[in-house]
Amino acid sequence: MILGILKEPSPETRISLHPEAVKVLTGSGNQVLIEKGAGEFAFLSDEIYKEAGASVKTRAEVLDSAEMIFQINPLELEEQKKLSKGKYLIGVYQPLVARDLVKELAETGVTLFSMDSIPRITRAQSMDVLSSMSTVSGYKAVLLAAATLPRFFPMLMTAAGTIAPAKVLVIGAGVAGLQAIATAKRLGAVVEAFDTRPSVKEQVESLGGKFVEVPGAVEDKGAGGYAVEQSEEYKQKQSEMLEKSIIKSDVVITTALIPGRKAPVLITKSMLVKMKAGAVVVDLAAVNGGNCEGTENNKTVTISGVTVIGNSVLPSTMPEDASKMYSKNVQNLLKLLLKEDQINLNFEDAIIKGTCITHDGKVIYEPLLK
Amino acid sequence: MILGILKEPSPETRISLHPEAVKVLTGSGNQVLIEKGAGEFAFLSDEIYKEAGASVKTRAEVLDSAEMIFQINPLELEEQKKLSKGKYLIGVYQPLVARDLVKELAETGVTLFSMDSIPRITRAQSMDVLSSMSTVSGYKAVLLAAATLPRFFPMLMTAAGTIAPAKVLVIGAGVAGLQAIATAKRLGAVVEAFDTRPSVKEQVESLGGKFVEVPGAVEDKGAGGYAVEQSEEYKQKQSEMLEKSIIKSDVVITTALIPGRKAPVLITKSMLVKMKAGAVVVDLAAVNGGNCEGTENNKTVTISGVTVIGNSVLPSTMPEDASKMYSKNVQNLLKLLLKEDQINLNFEDAIIKGTCITHDGKVIYEPLLK
Repeated sequence: MILGILKEPSPETRISLHPEAVKVLTGSGNQVLIEKGAGEFAFLSDEIYKEAGASVKTRAEVLDSAEMIFQINPLELEEQKKLSKGKYLIGVYQPLVARDLVKELAETGVTLFSMDSIPRITRAQSMDVLSSMSTVSGYKAVLLAAATLPRFFPMLMTAAGTIAPAKVLVIGAGVAGLQAIATAKRLGAVVEAFDTRPSVKEQVESLGGKFVEVPGAVEDKGAGGYAVEQSEEYKQKQSEMLEKSIIKSDVVITTALIPGRKAPVLITKSMLVKMKAGAVVVDLAAVNGGNCEGTENNKTVTISGVTVIGNSVLPSTMPEDASKMYSKNVQNLLKLLLKEDQINLNFEDAIIKGTCITHDGKVIYEPLLK
Repeated sequence: MILGILKEPSPETRISLHPEAVKVLTGSGNQVLIEKGAGEFAFLSDEIYKEAGASVKTRAEVLDSAEMIFQINPLELEEQKKLSKGKYLIGVYQPLVARDLVKELAETGVTLFSMDSIPRITRAQSMDVLSSMSTVSGYKAVLLAAATLPRFFPMLMTAAGTIAPAKVLVIGAGVAGLQAIATAKRLGAVVEAFDTRPSVKEQVESLGGKFVEVPGAVEDKGAGGYAVEQSEEYKQKQSEMLEKSIIKSDVVITTALIPGRKAPVLITKSMLVKMKAGAVVVDLAAVNGGNCEGTENNKTVTISGVTVIGNSVLPSTMPEDASKMYSKNVQNLLKLLLKEDQINLNFEDAIIKGTCITHDGKVIYEPLLK
């Protein structure tokens, strides 16, 4: 197969295939083309890609010659339309959001795999870009909070007195939340965590966090591990419990996302007013409206003396390792897709079926067919 | 005594006396005046100071009424000249650098204590602002490096592959360096440290760092714990050893300062060229010219793909705890200076003598009399 890596549109800094992946793929007989300078912002030079076995080309050459094209962010509509039938495209398309783009793409006859649609089943964990990017986000959220807080995270006993450790509250103990708990504990903070799913209590505690329990939550094992919508009564109780924890915290990291919905508001302005001056909120649900009232996506704002960081592009701030992880996810999908370096479109496989969005001129992604 | 806290000149964010200190000082019978809004940038409101027992005044009122005046940064010359004879001033004046300012101040008849001149003896450790502020700088340097690095600090074993831990090199294992080592270890990095003083090896190792040994260094026990100038032969050997460690590091934190001298250049441009793309240098010696060739004070520059952060105001980026520590140092000095709330200028005491710069119309600081 001829595989082609494209340079991402600005401000993206990641790259879809890391040199380590290129080495493996060229080693097993594939040809890899890369657009000139594609790895620049991930600190991966053309030289490094050449050493891994790739050939550096212009964008037009990659688009023209590659049978399978890799770009994390969706192609521009103009470029999509020029793609010839039968090509494969692998990226992150958010098909439920970008319905029109996907429909147009189907018409070109291109086969699209969207990495964010990997089914959340055990066998697919190694391909799950939402998980891997959440790992980056959870870690980086804590670093941002610690760098912003006017206080230390760890307890210090110095000649100039004792400094109490910072109190960190993590709301939502999914992959990002658990990584945030682990990182805040590493830095010496006292960590509490909240989640509507009682089943994550053990994980929180194994990382040294205290689990804030609000009894009565509904959990849905069929929700792919995601939290589900709760009753009004539960929400009221949750809000009261959370408020107590929020107003004594120096840092709150919120990660509560319900896929395809507006993020639930968990920190209201009236709670922000009661928080300590100088406290920091990092809202990882900013892209879906945020868990904090007043969050602005990809902006840092100050509300009643509290710094609210709404950042949904944290993986791009750690481009080298984020690219390495994304690329590993793609590489694991390719293990299914490429058999003896030929494409193996086995739609009996739940992963291939679940991830394939367009094929043979049609949208075939089930959630879009309803 | 009437004590007066002034608002610092911008861009300083710290404040010279924390509400906790105000509470103690007013509790023991002193009156504390504070300039309106003085604690604003340290997230300490006038309300908090009022609760601690202070009275909020204008700057003119504080300058006029207070017998002892607190401001971390030196007063403007204009303001100095207006101070009436017999007043006490406590701040950080760097008397060996700001000779003219100090001379002018002496002429006003003000008694100046400069906190950076506290002798480096055991009994004075609790008053040592260079130590306490270095603790903040060493911690914050690592956070800045981790937030800038395109890679993780900790080793991670995830479904998307294993991430190797970052390699951090700390040059200079004084207070800032040791805190940097501790913080980088907390975050999961592999840490090496270098110092010309073999005696710090044990401290480095007790924090989990690997000590890079360059045999043959001269150590001077009389240098107040500071490193001293080394021979040319030693410097050559040191440079070769350091280069090996530098070029394999993801992050280098440099803290090598020799008081009153230009900081030694330890990372040359030819070493920067050999470092990994995306690596980060945080140069805490930036104010004295830097340990890295090309460092610019209070700027971040990119040299051959390496981000070089030259920051000498890190304590101001963590104003609340930095103020708390500075203030604790001042409070400990006041325990010596104030006896039954009267000033007790006992020049037999090495700390009082060593820290007092001007008194009774004259400069009395010994290093300035030579």
